[in-house]
Amino acid sequence: VLIIGERINASRKSIAEAITSRNAPLIQIEAKSQAVAGADYIDVNAGTFVGEEIKHLQWIIETVQEIVDLPLCIDSPDPSVIKAMLPLVKKSPMINSITLEPFRLEEILPLVAKYKTKVIALCQSGESIADTAEAKVKMARQLVEKVKAAGIPLDDLYIDPLVYPLATNDRSALETLDAIEKIMKEFPGVHTTCGLTNVSYGLPNRKLVNRTFLVLAIDRGLDSAILDPTDKQLFGTLKAALMIAGKDEFCMEYIAGFREGKLE
Amino acid sequence: VLIIGERINASRKSIAEAITSRNAPLIQIEAKSQAVAGADYIDVNAGTFVGEEIKHLQWIIETVQEIVDLPLCIDSPDPSVIKAMLPLVKKSPMINSITLEPFRLEEILPLVAKYKTKVIALCQSGESIADTAEAKVKMARQLVEKVKAAGIPLDDLYIDPLVYPLATNDRSALETLDAIEKIMKEFPGVHTTCGLTNVSYGLPNRKLVNRTFLVLAIDRGLDSAILDPTDKQLFGTLKAALMIAGKDEFCMEYIAGFREGKLE
Repeated sequence: VLIIGERINASRKSIAEAITSRNAPLIQIEAKSQAVAGADYIDVNAGTFVGEEIKHLQWIIETVQEIVDLPLCIDSPDPSVIKAMLPLVKKSPMINSITLEPFRLEEILPLVAKYKTKVIALCQSGESIADTAEAKVKMARQLVEKVKAAGIPLDDLYIDPLVYPLATNDRSALETLDAIEKIMKEFPGVHTTCGLTNVSYGLPNRKLVNRTFLVLAIDRGLDSAILDPTDKQLFGTLKAALMIAGKDEFCMEYIAGFREGKLE
Repeated sequence: VLIIGERINASRKSIAEAITSRNAPLIQIEAKSQAVAGADYIDVNAGTFVGEEIKHLQWIIETVQEIVDLPLCIDSPDPSVIKAMLPLVKKSPMINSITLEPFRLEEILPLVAKYKTKVIALCQSGESIADTAEAKVKMARQLVEKVKAAGIPLDDLYIDPLVYPLATNDRSALETLDAIEKIMKEFPGVHTTCGLTNVSYGLPNRKLVNRTFLVLAIDRGLDSAILDPTDKQLFGTLKAALMIAGKDEFCMEYIAGFREGKLE
């Protein structure tokens, strides 16, 4: 499972403060701790700073690249921000994200093709919310077509079917799980990814809900996730899920994770 | 999900000591705490006392029935012990367990029919270990036939496909999960149950493995489990799994469990 470390996000108060005060050590600790914990990509997001996003994200990227060798996941709703960041990264990055909204497709897909990046594609259009497995798979199909048409290998596509809060729709997790399974079957070579935190919005003990959702998503074939790898309960649950689902030969990764003190 | 509370088992040292010293309060606390936590049946087992099992189990049953109203799960490998206990229970019990071994079938099935009890049936014969989903389902089919032939309603049958340690076979959990799904599809009306602890034998952080296995088993259709309902992390994981799998309308059971302090 490819892990995208989510901690460097300006929607977190400590990160926003570190950005405005140019507190490089804090950002670097966040980057390094995620790398040590097992992240494959470090997500970088300054999306709450409207109008100043380019300046701040550039600083974050330079700061993170000073301390870790991992590739970055450039996370912005604004195609012009993504375009400005691509020349700055040392390793082939991931772009987070495209949707079916035409302006994002038109601006970002050529960049994905040109820079040979990976790209996260959300099952979302400007008009409607896809809250059933059927609607999510339909949007995934359209995303696959757009990506293919742009000459991008399907191996670089990470479809996020999105999960909505259980508190407002008690079938929302089930629909997303079904969508993951169907997407992985219908489009061989394509990857799926998912942020976990939405599912528990409005419920108590959110981390329990998030990690339980992850177990089922792994079982349905999810092969990437956007999460906090330094959360040892979550990381332990991930490793246990992979082992139980038959994806950990001789239980070696689970046992190694335990010996390294990464599981709880 | 029907929960069979597993704590009163003579293989646990504190229980064995309470039995030999006739420490009724300890046994009653174990019974009451499981009832409060959400057990539907209280398993009672004195199987380690060979030759004295009847005497000890009788004492346990009387002691437990003084303090809780729940039905019991009479747990013994010895049909004559089960036969001796049946007249003592106040509520229609569950019998734990039959296998495909002829002497157990011949002795116990008539008792199940006569006393109209529920019965746990293990996918196990005297000759071979069923370690693939196919072999487990084959044994389940034979168990269903035997139970039907004895005139027992399938609604009273709880098939345990058994799970073997991942540490010795990294596909063992997967085979059991597949068996659960297939048994629930092939035999409508039949229930499945499972003990959780075997899966983690020989691995570190066993409780993490057990509860992660439970999440996947619930998703595949498991509708009963033999577990410790006073383990709040396990119980919380169970409630979260039911909610995520779409089996908790409006998330009401999850939220109620949280409010009652039963989830962690």
